Amino acid sequence: MDILVVGSVAFDSVETPFGKVEEALGGSATYFSTSASFFADVAMVAVIGEDFPEKHVEMLKNKGIDTRGLTRVSGGKTFRWTGKYDYDLNQAHTLDTQLNVISDFDPKLPDDYKKIPYLFLANIDPELQMKVLEQVESPRLIACDTMNFWIEGKPGKLKELLKGVEMLVINEGEAREFASEANLVRAARTILSCGPKTLIVKRGEYGALMFNGNTVFSAPAYPLEDIFDPTGAGDSFAGGLIGYLANTGNLSEENIRKAIVVGSTMASFNVEAFSLDRLSKLTLDEINNRFKSFKKLTHFEDL
Amino acid sequence: MDILVVGSVAFDSVETPFGKVEEALGGSATYFSTSASFFADVAMVAVIGEDFPEKHVEMLKNKGIDTRGLTRVSGGKTFRWTGKYDYDLNQAHTLDTQLNVISDFDPKLPDDYKKIPYLFLANIDPELQMKVLEQVESPRLIACDTMNFWIEGKPGKLKELLKGVEMLVINEGEAREFASEANLVRAARTILSCGPKTLIVKRGEYGALMFNGNTVFSAPAYPLEDIFDPTGAGDSFAGGLIGYLANTGNLSEENIRKAIVVGSTMASFNVEAFSLDRLSKLTLDEINNRFKSFKKLTHFEDL
Repeated sequence: MDILVVGSVAFDSVETPFGKVEEALGGSATYFSTSASFFADVAMVAVIGEDFPEKHVEMLKNKGIDTRGLTRVSGGKTFRWTGKYDYDLNQAHTLDTQLNVISDFDPKLPDDYKKIPYLFLANIDPELQMKVLEQVESPRLIACDTMNFWIEGKPGKLKELLKGVEMLVINEGEAREFASEANLVRAARTILSCGPKTLIVKRGEYGALMFNGNTVFSAPAYPLEDIFDPTGAGDSFAGGLIGYLANTGNLSEENIRKAIVVGSTMASFNVEAFSLDRLSKLTLDEINNRFKSFKKLTHFEDL
Repeated sequence: MDILVVGSVAFDSVETPFGKVEEALGGSATYFSTSASFFADVAMVAVIGEDFPEKHVEMLKNKGIDTRGLTRVSGGKTFRWTGKYDYDLNQAHTLDTQLNVISDFDPKLPDDYKKIPYLFLANIDPELQMKVLEQVESPRLIACDTMNFWIEGKPGKLKELLKGVEMLVINEGEAREFASEANLVRAARTILSCGPKTLIVKRGEYGALMFNGNTVFSAPAYPLEDIFDPTGAGDSFAGGLIGYLANTGNLSEENIRKAIVVGSTMASFNVEAFSLDRLSKLTLDEINNRFKSFKKLTHFEDL
């Protein structure tokens, strides 16, 4: 195994201006793993309830994802998220969050999971992220995501966690909120002083910015004519990013830049359909071709 | 002369979270000309009142700008704009607009102005833009800016004008509004069907997108720690863009891409201070160095 991810597996009910789905497969660990599975072997730590259909587990297994860390709680209910997007698809409006089985989850890693070299703490309760972090044995890279729900709800735990994290991947609004600073360059400096060496800021349809020491990298998003559902775009982005880093085993800034564009590539596919409908059907050829389009999209000559 | 610009010369009263100015020099033609003057010879068509200080005219002349087309109306008052920015510096809130001498302006071009090869119709009443367009003799490039004030106030005149325009440079929100379409790729297609061959969408701190036939180019904005006043950023952008095109005499897509980054470079300097304080002191070395930073900011290798 190359990558260990802890995060949520969920039923998402989502409404966008272009349609709606009820209790569709979702969750940060689900999107991340599926996206990363195109580049590397992924082991997943997450919890589901008795109501979670076996066909979804089969889909993950078919992508080569190791689901031994996926705990099923008998009698329990799977985590549920209900959200809505207006025409500004950059902004999710949470209507309901039911943690269910996640509330009491106490992850115990199988022994062989503890030596996996790339760790991604996908968006979930920072206390759960910490429990996984404490069990692993010096991975090569520890990366982490979070969201406003935890920035507001458990800021202390999150700050404690960040001390042990090398790469933080969060949304622009969350970066500003976490740092209490409107200017993103200043917000980034505050966040980097909390532990991470690299901050990657996701900006929805505006792409991503990486702050790495004193250098900054700006990656665009792919201009799409049909965006159906942004749910999971950030997790798909992270899956492409960490997947590519694990695939190449190269943590140079130059390679992180490429990995970010791979992440943007994966996110651009994910938003083309609801749930995991697009990612689950994606091919490596499509990924390579869209990466090339990103190159053309950003190309300009020297003066 | 290389470039002819028609636009506003104004007194701007602006408040941002970082300070305020009262009746500072502003206006679309002023910002555009000053920015373009670093790359090409600019002739300006605009109108001012009796209250306009000669020292501002001298500043423009010192930049090599031909002000023979700057009409002073005796007894008239110069155009005034009052606006405010909150922490979201991408969004200007207009508090007051006093057209004053602009209301009755009837521009008559000096004969030698009619043969100037690059024409920029900066943001001003589309009827005035049309009057200038009707007097010129087949320029090499006709480019144009506008704003929500005219999209809402004179949509018919604007559509008529666009039939004769090759390159349109507008803000993202204005592009969506003009096309009545939330998705930017679709909005761009609608706008390109109205006449322009090239659409350049300004996205404030998110950079710019160019739609040129079927290709798209994405340029970032420069991540700045200190943004004092976004007023004139779009006009400075256009000044760098058209200035560089006129300087090189090359209208290939490849060169338009470079010109857009030159435009972003000029805009990034402009927002570092109120009014024209930063642009008026800028050096070519500073411009070249920041362009190189844009190259580093966006660089990534092939897969």
